[in-house]
Amino acid sequence: MSLLVVGSIGIDTVETPRTRKENLLGGSAVYFSYAAAFYTQVRLVGVVGKDFPSVHRALLEARDIDLSGLEVADGETFRWVGRYRENMIDRDTLEVDLNVFGNFDPKVPAEYKSSEFLFLANGAPVVQRKVLDQLPKRPKFVAMDTMDLWIETARGDLTALLRQVDALVINDSEARLLTGQQELLRAGLSILDLGVPTAIVKKGEHGALVVSRHGHFAVPGFPLEEVIDPTGAGDSFAGGICGYIASTGDTSPENLRRAVAHGAVVASYTVQDFSLEALKRITRSDLDARYEMLLDLVRIPKS
Amino acid sequence: MSLLVVGSIGIDTVETPRTRKENLLGGSAVYFSYAAAFYTQVRLVGVVGKDFPSVHRALLEARDIDLSGLEVADGETFRWVGRYRENMIDRDTLEVDLNVFGNFDPKVPAEYKSSEFLFLANGAPVVQRKVLDQLPKRPKFVAMDTMDLWIETARGDLTALLRQVDALVINDSEARLLTGQQELLRAGLSILDLGVPTAIVKKGEHGALVVSRHGHFAVPGFPLEEVIDPTGAGDSFAGGICGYIASTGDTSPENLRRAVAHGAVVASYTVQDFSLEALKRITRSDLDARYEMLLDLVRIPKS
Repeated sequence: MSLLVVGSIGIDTVETPRTRKENLLGGSAVYFSYAAAFYTQVRLVGVVGKDFPSVHRALLEARDIDLSGLEVADGETFRWVGRYRENMIDRDTLEVDLNVFGNFDPKVPAEYKSSEFLFLANGAPVVQRKVLDQLPKRPKFVAMDTMDLWIETARGDLTALLRQVDALVINDSEARLLTGQQELLRAGLSILDLGVPTAIVKKGEHGALVVSRHGHFAVPGFPLEEVIDPTGAGDSFAGGICGYIASTGDTSPENLRRAVAHGAVVASYTVQDFSLEALKRITRSDLDARYEMLLDLVRIPKS
Repeated sequence: MSLLVVGSIGIDTVETPRTRKENLLGGSAVYFSYAAAFYTQVRLVGVVGKDFPSVHRALLEARDIDLSGLEVADGETFRWVGRYRENMIDRDTLEVDLNVFGNFDPKVPAEYKSSEFLFLANGAPVVQRKVLDQLPKRPKFVAMDTMDLWIETARGDLTALLRQVDALVINDSEARLLTGQQELLRAGLSILDLGVPTAIVKKGEHGALVVSRHGHFAVPGFPLEEVIDPTGAGDSFAGGICGYIASTGDTSPENLRRAVAHGAVVASYTVQDFSLEALKRITRSDLDARYEMLLDLVRIPKS
């Protein structure tokens, strides 16, 4: 079933302790879409500038991502420059130019309006809400992401939006910032108190802790011998989750466990190269094979 | 079956952001023994000073821990003062007085010499080795811990000892220090290259990644709403692992998965109060109940 996503599309420059790559395709909606497209039909709402390279557009189209909601505005595409520290986890933003994304006013094309699954990738809560408000019928499943900026500057809008979605995907430090709770289980429970039924707390290489009204569960990160670039891991993780849920049409708590494991698997490929490079090289069967390895990784045999 | 442990016995003072507790029973061999004693008969080799309170001795005896290898030496018991930071993970050692532990020359009582399971808790590799060398027959399973101090000051002795044991239990930062590898999977694989068949890499609240010649697996930390005092978590984790293995007599790779999950469960109780307080209040059936919860936590249903 169709999965609609709204979020950023950007041109990234990424520095790691070992290398530097310029003009990479990035952005939350891009990583999400590309990951989700392994599982289901994806429809993207976003904005780029007139400088957006046609090769990037072609890359997304090659995975059948529907770009009829991709607006090309006067001006330049969103740009981000970041540098990872030696641990390949902490990063510093060296430069952000919102450009056309700064005035982003999302418009949901008519043919997208029946989408049954929706992901509101990281962005201003008022902008995220505009997409939800344009859908005549509430989708079967709505998830969203957020970040420290919105927690600090738009908490009221954010918490109002949280009451309208099924799941919040959020990283550990932001879950702590949002709730004031140090322990992630308590942070997750506090997020439920804000009115969202499921909190998917991302822990980077350590995977995720999912706290929901139906109980909680943990999925580890898929262990890798080398991480090349962590950028987009969280967005592709969400893409794997929502893509799998949309592909099965099953929003049950049991299926969420499978979905989060798929998310961990896609994210593990994402970080094995810059931008979408590693994801470009694989197919759904690679994901399914690693998924089976993840199942074995967490297996505890009966006594 | 009997499990022999050698390590430190200490009197700790622990400061957390919320409270300070003085003169707590602590030390690696104490946490290990108390945890393992839920599963099997434990024999302890260690040293205390003449100041060691009889109430502490009575506490260990109440769990049938065999103290015939506990030497009482002239002088004072090992003392440690530590302070946890706000995240309840990082800690600073404010004071260490090795006292009688500084000259510890372990003597394995005759009745301990047939022990089939052995844990060399954190200590100087030369001291750890003395215990192994006193056993006429190599135990069925030998595990050990270590710390940054020995990695930095006694690497030769440490790596020589590693070639004689079945498993190294080591925390993440120390695994990185020992191997120079940032990614824990690669650090674990590098530990195998040092000649030890299994590396159990502890990740605190995130559980453990186990890398072995038979493949690898992950066990999460048991999520808690509140951590009171992390001291002893790693040692009681090892105690749960070795205690469970000794109780079943099964050193297979499959049983190691169950054992590590039991270790995670005991460790989760340890951190719910200072010293052994939380462990004092529970029985094996509490551990088994939480073990079932842990199994459910990691469960990913078949498609």
